[in-house]
Amino acid sequence: MRVTSQADDSVIAFASALADEAGRIVRPMFRAPVLVHSKQDESPVTRADKDAELAMRALIARTYPDHGILGEEFGHENAGAPWCWVLDPIDGTRAFITGRPSFGTLIGLLHDGVPVLGVIDQPVTGERWIGVRGRPTLFTSSLGGQIGTRPCSGLADAELSATSPEMFGDSWPGFQRLSSRVRRTSWGGDCYAYGLLALGQIDIIAECGLKPWDWAALVPVVTGAGGRLVDWQGRALTLASTGHALAVGDARLLEQAIAAMA
Amino acid sequence: MRVTSQADDSVIAFASALADEAGRIVRPMFRAPVLVHSKQDESPVTRADKDAELAMRALIARTYPDHGILGEEFGHENAGAPWCWVLDPIDGTRAFITGRPSFGTLIGLLHDGVPVLGVIDQPVTGERWIGVRGRPTLFTSSLGGQIGTRPCSGLADAELSATSPEMFGDSWPGFQRLSSRVRRTSWGGDCYAYGLLALGQIDIIAECGLKPWDWAALVPVVTGAGGRLVDWQGRALTLASTGHALAVGDARLLEQAIAAMA
Repeated sequence: MRVTSQADDSVIAFASALADEAGRIVRPMFRAPVLVHSKQDESPVTRADKDAELAMRALIARTYPDHGILGEEFGHENAGAPWCWVLDPIDGTRAFITGRPSFGTLIGLLHDGVPVLGVIDQPVTGERWIGVRGRPTLFTSSLGGQIGTRPCSGLADAELSATSPEMFGDSWPGFQRLSSRVRRTSWGGDCYAYGLLALGQIDIIAECGLKPWDWAALVPVVTGAGGRLVDWQGRALTLASTGHALAVGDARLLEQAIAAMA
Repeated sequence: MRVTSQADDSVIAFASALADEAGRIVRPMFRAPVLVHSKQDESPVTRADKDAELAMRALIARTYPDHGILGEEFGHENAGAPWCWVLDPIDGTRAFITGRPSFGTLIGLLHDGVPVLGVIDQPVTGERWIGVRGRPTLFTSSLGGQIGTRPCSGLADAELSATSPEMFGDSWPGFQRLSSRVRRTSWGGDCYAYGLLALGQIDIIAECGLKPWDWAALVPVVTGAGGRLVDWQGRALTLASTGHALAVGDARLLEQAIAAMA
């Protein structure tokens, strides 16, 4: 890869190959009897999560040995590198464990901390979003839908989404104020909801507690579909962010949502 | 159909044909541009909902002219009949509108008010559950999973699910007490979550505001997988029920969940 802050075609193809590899490991565990009947139902999932992250780390180390890697299970490798892969093989563990095909594999690439490439992969339904800074997001799915956020000028017309009320902690009253001003609120979804926002199906997502491996892949997907993904003050997400995430399909909603939650 | 309180094979095949017919009408609307870009985004969904219900009503009237029909959009027809079809072409309107393949078409058949047959059909992923009183539930899916609820002897090990916190109204504190005692709570899902309970993926579902067309199809699916679906006092759901629904995969959870919510 050339020394540039853009992801080139070879790195995009490589990111797809990483998603393929994670899918091969994660997919057989979905709704598997070992999960259904395990008393410690987290351990087989954790194992799949770890195996998939290790497999992706090995591919990255072989192809881009000078790149950094930040993953949920195995921490930060080569932390000073300007390019850093950010990995979450199973985003939406609760969804995965309860058999919902709304979890996803997240693969992000940061350059000097700025997200330049992101993949949301749903290995069970076979849906994949690929976002690249400066390019329109790509989407492949057999379930339908087209890339492009939806125009929505005001909160009163907006579909709001969040994964669970438990995620908000002290920020729950702020979310409730936003929820009271929108058209409807729907629940569940994890990374999949950001993919739906990129398809124009959802207008706003407000969440808390997101780690870098939760949001790094989502920023290029949402941005390349015409939306914005920032923190609750409208600032770019960084490795130092608190994990408050606000995504809008139409930028006109940004200030309204921030004001409602403040 | 013979005069018996059991559904026979011909009526089971007929129920599948009803689901096929509804799917043909509902499927093209999923993530359709007309929904994404409509300012009144409910109206095209309402039209698909009504068209699918009318199509199913026409098939029932032709095949079983002496049967009653109860549907969300067009009320109760032939209300005194001992057999009554209970229809909801799009259960989970919010899921449908936001592009989530977790809505479903629900087709139930009551005999003297008792659910004897139920179909949960997910027309986008192609998943279908068919429950018949006195028989094991059938399940077809390309996403994996096998029929059979999961053993779970205590709340502390249980996966709890509900569609949204907004559905509970005055019953929210009761749900919160239950939620505080289980292993985890996950959100979203509508009828699909009951299908996942029948696959042993979820242990408890507690919800409010369910109408007969929401629960009639679910009772045979859950029961035929080894679970129970009753009201929050453990009584059978009837047309006079308040719409508080409690599903458990393992009957040992029933009294514990009722006590926690009381």
